[in-house]
Amino acid sequence: MASFAPSPADAADIGVTGMAVMGSNLARNLARNGFKVAIHNRSVGKTEAVIAEHGTDGEFFPSESMEDFVGSLQKPRVAIIMVKAGGPTDAVIDELSSLMDEGDIIVDAGNALFTDTRRREAALREKGQHFVGAGVSGGEEGALNGPSIMPGGTKESYDRLGPMFETIAAKAEDGKPCCTHVGADGAGHFVKMVHNGIEYADMQVISEAYDMMSKALGMDADAIGDVFEEWNKGDLESFLIEITATVLHHKDATTGEPFVDVVLDQAAQKGTGAWTVKTALDLGVPVTGIAEATFARSISGGTPQREAARGVLVGEEQQLEIADPKQFIDDLQKALYAAKLVSYSQGFDEIAKGADEYGWDITLGDMAAIWREGCIIRARFLDRITEAYDRNPGLSLLLSDEYFSTEIAKCIPAWRRIVAFAASTGCPVPVFASTLSYYDSVRAERLPAALVQAQRDYFGAHTYQRVDAEGTFHVEWTEDRRETKQD
Amino acid sequence: MASFAPSPADAADIGVTGMAVMGSNLARNLARNGFKVAIHNRSVGKTEAVIAEHGTDGEFFPSESMEDFVGSLQKPRVAIIMVKAGGPTDAVIDELSSLMDEGDIIVDAGNALFTDTRRREAALREKGQHFVGAGVSGGEEGALNGPSIMPGGTKESYDRLGPMFETIAAKAEDGKPCCTHVGADGAGHFVKMVHNGIEYADMQVISEAYDMMSKALGMDADAIGDVFEEWNKGDLESFLIEITATVLHHKDATTGEPFVDVVLDQAAQKGTGAWTVKTALDLGVPVTGIAEATFARSISGGTPQREAARGVLVGEEQQLEIADPKQFIDDLQKALYAAKLVSYSQGFDEIAKGADEYGWDITLGDMAAIWREGCIIRARFLDRITEAYDRNPGLSLLLSDEYFSTEIAKCIPAWRRIVAFAASTGCPVPVFASTLSYYDSVRAERLPAALVQAQRDYFGAHTYQRVDAEGTFHVEWTEDRRETKQD
Repeated sequence: MASFAPSPADAADIGVTGMAVMGSNLARNLARNGFKVAIHNRSVGKTEAVIAEHGTDGEFFPSESMEDFVGSLQKPRVAIIMVKAGGPTDAVIDELSSLMDEGDIIVDAGNALFTDTRRREAALREKGQHFVGAGVSGGEEGALNGPSIMPGGTKESYDRLGPMFETIAAKAEDGKPCCTHVGADGAGHFVKMVHNGIEYADMQVISEAYDMMSKALGMDADAIGDVFEEWNKGDLESFLIEITATVLHHKDATTGEPFVDVVLDQAAQKGTGAWTVKTALDLGVPVTGIAEATFARSISGGTPQREAARGVLVGEEQQLEIADPKQFIDDLQKALYAAKLVSYSQGFDEIAKGADEYGWDITLGDMAAIWREGCIIRARFLDRITEAYDRNPGLSLLLSDEYFSTEIAKCIPAWRRIVAFAASTGCPVPVFASTLSYYDSVRAERLPAALVQAQRDYFGAHTYQRVDAEGTFHVEWTEDRRETKQD
Repeated sequence: MASFAPSPADAADIGVTGMAVMGSNLARNLARNGFKVAIHNRSVGKTEAVIAEHGTDGEFFPSESMEDFVGSLQKPRVAIIMVKAGGPTDAVIDELSSLMDEGDIIVDAGNALFTDTRRREAALREKGQHFVGAGVSGGEEGALNGPSIMPGGTKESYDRLGPMFETIAAKAEDGKPCCTHVGADGAGHFVKMVHNGIEYADMQVISEAYDMMSKALGMDADAIGDVFEEWNKGDLESFLIEITATVLHHKDATTGEPFVDVVLDQAAQKGTGAWTVKTALDLGVPVTGIAEATFARSISGGTPQREAARGVLVGEEQQLEIADPKQFIDDLQKALYAAKLVSYSQGFDEIAKGADEYGWDITLGDMAAIWREGCIIRARFLDRITEAYDRNPGLSLLLSDEYFSTEIAKCIPAWRRIVAFAASTGCPVPVFASTLSYYDSVRAERLPAALVQAQRDYFGAHTYQRVDAEGTFHVEWTEDRRETKQD
């Protein structure tokens, strides 16, 4: 086992502990951008490997012990933690914090639940230290070459951290870094969570479009890949559409078959989709697209249920002719765009509501701006979201912005045809269908919720409001059916 | 202020604290069935009112203080708490527990989150006392005349409690009481939670059927009420269908208009639907119908969003002629039945998974049996669920039971027509559509989840499995696209 020469005190601009691939890539990105980077890992082997393989990326200061790691940092110190969420993160925070001074900054760059981040921030604040929950998106590739970074925490901590993060972050076409101060305490991790939720919906609806081309049009993966490649030149241009084309064009080396056809049809999840939905339920924000996408993964992994259903649950599908495949594909493109707009609108609603609830001063347009490059849901149309919030910072429904309402209007007949076709022919389209139902619900002059509320008043005396009078009312249903006004 | 003469020690079979309407009705139900009931309320006025208004229902032993209340109970003592969930419940438990002895039983008959019940049960177990979380469904009316009761906790506590609860519970047609020992600690509240979740889905899909008759067929509330009255004579026979007919037939006294038309179209919620969905997300069980129903209530209450959308989001609906309204109504009936079967199947899946997770020995068929009367989702077809689990206690998907798969098969063409029609004509049908997508997902030979998993492998190195080989694999996407087998 190698042992490093002690790093000079006060040497490094910033430190990273946790040298798995995300942490080491983040450290390398910092080093490549001219920052002096202290690095540390619980087992020293990974630290050695970074030095051996990537030592020439820049100035690294490796440490074997946490004491040396902290000692090598310039004050006020900045240490980034990139370890497993939950218990391991808490353990490292405690250790680091005990070695650090007032004014020092600990950054958790993993995917933590924002409520954990709030708890940790409060604890460190009591000690006069800063805790920054920073969402980092872009996967391994992004961490190395420019991620989208969503740091929460105090403004003071951002003054110290921000310039470094903005340097290593991805840059949008207009040159602006994909990093900004999101808001206090857990705001950064909250926004990253919703980002991931939107990612779930995006991936699911892309897979639904693929599924319909495969099942309804009988196209092979290669041909469908061509369609996605084409779509990537238009409004749908985005990282996920781009890699979909790549994946669909890829051939499995073992069998020569299209790669996607040899992959088991079970999608796993690490929990950020479920977090987004659970948080939305707490906030009362309908994120139906994200919920359906999250559940779609659970269905795919529900082996006993799928086996029980196989061959037993019949389809009774309608056999519909597709007279014009080109038109059908064009419909799919429009439906995909519409469903995507709804998912983003629902996600931004959740961010807005979360900001209200937790007192975060989040500039919604900036969130779209820092997702334009580096992150998994980077997409051309994010500029349109920023413009929408610039036009109207208090926009209560992104879809109602003039640009989006005009855009989606063009897609609606196609979207309706796709959902109707899928329902008739037995193709599961949870996100296409759910986002359409949401669209038709939110725009409805009158919803049948009146009947639901009347039922609630019947069996639970939950009362109701009237369309024509102020106040809260109740009917004595099982007695004389008199209406009484409640106090 | 009145003061009661002290109750004789050891006098009462059981006690109820919390004399709001649910608590007093439960106490009256017990008294009417010959049990001697100690009653108590924090402010004595409510206790006095029960005695004044309903003292002749049976033998009550009112107490002003918690000490007297506990003193009046026969040992081992049984005290039912019916107060506000959360903090108030904890406070009353602490007070009661400190006055009680080993072997005594505290029952929380409110809607507590099952994880709170587990925590409280564990705490009382340490003191040698029993804590029973009992779900009670049926509203005020049920509490008085016979609710469905779902008690958790130890078998020992059920030996003492069960006979009383079974006496006051509703009775099914075959005479069996709608109460059984559900399982240890939080099992009763868990099952009650899922019951409520199913209730959300049921109410929403009923309202969707109503909405389509109203919007697509232009029927008025009275005519739609007739349809529900008719439906209540067939497979759909249930309390919720019955009260829907009643509500739709009811005329508003002030305006003379159909009552439902003067009710504001915003459905409120008290949280059990959201609990059901959040728990399902934790367990990885897809309860899409319940989720859509819960979100539908949030959408209805989202005034700023609905106002922003109004007149801005266009419908671009297709105008479809309904050649045969009778056929359309028949389709709706079948679609409703199918969507309902899916919601129940999803709910039972959640109970089964919860039982696995928490080690509860829940007999699934018995849960359907104790919902046959007394509770809000009481329905004729619950007998069919009990039979299905009798046939196959290990049934992993209720829908795959021979009875249900045969029943639903008859409904599918109609269900598809309804969802397709709604999508085309702009009628929001979140539960009709979502349950159909679930049905088509769970029965699919192959899901597009393979593409989702491939994307995950691309951007996050999340690996995938193959259809033709054991193991876990990863493609080096940004390098030479070699497939590597993971350890």
